[in-house]
Amino acid sequence: MAANRGSRAIPVPELVKRAQAGEARAVARLISMVEDASPLLREVSAALAPHTGKAHVIGITGSPGVGKSTSTAALVTTLRKKGTRVGVLAVDPSSPFSGGALLGDRVRMQDHATDPGVYIRSMASRGHLGGLAWAAPQAIRVLDAAGCEVILVETVGVGQSEIEIAGLADTTLVLLAPGMGDGIQAAKAGILEIGDIFVVNKADRDGAATTRRELRSMIGLTEHSGNSWTPPIVLTVASKSEGIDEVAAAIADHFAYLNESGDLAKRRLARVRREIEAIALVEVRRKFGDLSGDSRLDALAESVVAGNDDPFSAADVLIDSL
Amino acid sequence: MAANRGSRAIPVPELVKRAQAGEARAVARLISMVEDASPLLREVSAALAPHTGKAHVIGITGSPGVGKSTSTAALVTTLRKKGTRVGVLAVDPSSPFSGGALLGDRVRMQDHATDPGVYIRSMASRGHLGGLAWAAPQAIRVLDAAGCEVILVETVGVGQSEIEIAGLADTTLVLLAPGMGDGIQAAKAGILEIGDIFVVNKADRDGAATTRRELRSMIGLTEHSGNSWTPPIVLTVASKSEGIDEVAAAIADHFAYLNESGDLAKRRLARVRREIEAIALVEVRRKFGDLSGDSRLDALAESVVAGNDDPFSAADVLIDSL
Repeated sequence: MAANRGSRAIPVPELVKRAQAGEARAVARLISMVEDASPLLREVSAALAPHTGKAHVIGITGSPGVGKSTSTAALVTTLRKKGTRVGVLAVDPSSPFSGGALLGDRVRMQDHATDPGVYIRSMASRGHLGGLAWAAPQAIRVLDAAGCEVILVETVGVGQSEIEIAGLADTTLVLLAPGMGDGIQAAKAGILEIGDIFVVNKADRDGAATTRRELRSMIGLTEHSGNSWTPPIVLTVASKSEGIDEVAAAIADHFAYLNESGDLAKRRLARVRREIEAIALVEVRRKFGDLSGDSRLDALAESVVAGNDDPFSAADVLIDSL
Repeated sequence: MAANRGSRAIPVPELVKRAQAGEARAVARLISMVEDASPLLREVSAALAPHTGKAHVIGITGSPGVGKSTSTAALVTTLRKKGTRVGVLAVDPSSPFSGGALLGDRVRMQDHATDPGVYIRSMASRGHLGGLAWAAPQAIRVLDAAGCEVILVETVGVGQSEIEIAGLADTTLVLLAPGMGDGIQAAKAGILEIGDIFVVNKADRDGAATTRRELRSMIGLTEHSGNSWTPPIVLTVASKSEGIDEVAAAIADHFAYLNESGDLAKRRLARVRREIEAIALVEVRRKFGDLSGDSRLDALAESVVAGNDDPFSAADVLIDSL
């Protein structure tokens, strides 16, 4: 806390310079500034912009219990052995309704806590007006500008956030585990389409071969139109670091594919479009919020609840009053 | 299809009148019109408005495999015995990336398919610009105006959609099953805060008592500030219709509580505020989309990807061009 307070006086360009030099405290400070939507947010974003676009952003997703934290930690170890600078962003969409992110699993990352080549950050999207779509890209920009060559974005949660994570990443790893639910459940959750690489973790358990087989046949059924990349399936036991080198190799292969095919530029353009739109929508919602401050939205809602008005007419009034 | 085509000529006020008289085909037609954002959407919404606000909207949520479909079907049977008119909206957030909702489980509802006092509808939020938040409230309005006294909104999917469902409902049922994951997982998924009633289904399996005990202690830890309702936990075996009467009783108790405490009016006002805002945001995004048609958003994104601009400045330009 004292350190944070002390760094408040440091001008933004100097903070960015220190982050680029690998000073963890400067990185932390910059992420806090973007996460908390500091008044200096725009200055920070402008200062970061020229230094971004170099990192390979990897999304890591999967149901609770498949071993995402353990896999992420093992992957960091492997990447560090090659000297790669790594950023880890653990996103916890948890509940929008009450405070307190549950990040107990994070302790597994503490092996890397003292390594200056690794920057680890937890982020709760809960409470953010724009959610994950708004906050995470800004934190990724900080890590990118700070020289992280690989950024692992891991979601702690479930469901929709998995698909949002895919929207943030160049490469998406989908983790499964034997007996965690069959291929149909994976299809329902919409994760078959988002995976660039599938990892069957806990592969020393019964059913790993079955899970791989099911997955292989379901991936076969999934449309990957105009896409010459067939997602590989890697079996791992992350707790014993088994198969992690293969995962790292698959990640490198996919990055090479993205570069050669031109997909990297396409994905990044689409990502930035969404990012700009998300920022603009938060701004618009803020304006709606301002309007509700003078109780206009309340009055509109009351009229609709009473059946005197319909929600589309009310929305028209809201937009007109922008 | 022929029926739908034939009904196109029917004017909206006549369609609404027929829906109120319980004509299933008119209800189906109106839901399709709102779901597909028909050009007549606004006329439909205006015609429905005076007839809405009577139904008790019940959200049913829980992880895949807990028995949501079976429980919903059993609950419909119980409600029908009392002569209650029931609407069922099965929401499938599935994947935004490919076509085809997976609604195989829906077959369980076919027991009720020939009952004129039950209206059953599946809805894929995928592909909707505003997602569940936009489309589901409109379908609920149709069912409400059509005289459904109870509307069960069941999510087929997982994750964030659970929390969205809670935002649509007067009463939220959270289903769990023994061995489906411990209380910590429930807490992570943020479902403890949203449940008005908890149902431990498959209670004839090992671990039901443990799940109830864990749940009870975790609910105890959850803040229900300013709320005098303590969520009951009901044990059921939906496949044998065991415990379903107790669930129906808990639902009736909660509705009485909502009415007496004034929470019903508060929840509905908050819900309609969100609904109006969701509609307005879709409209704004549509305008952004129009702008991208003249490639302005593309040009902004390219500039950000190149590091020549930051996303906040780009968002400012986008809003200014509205």
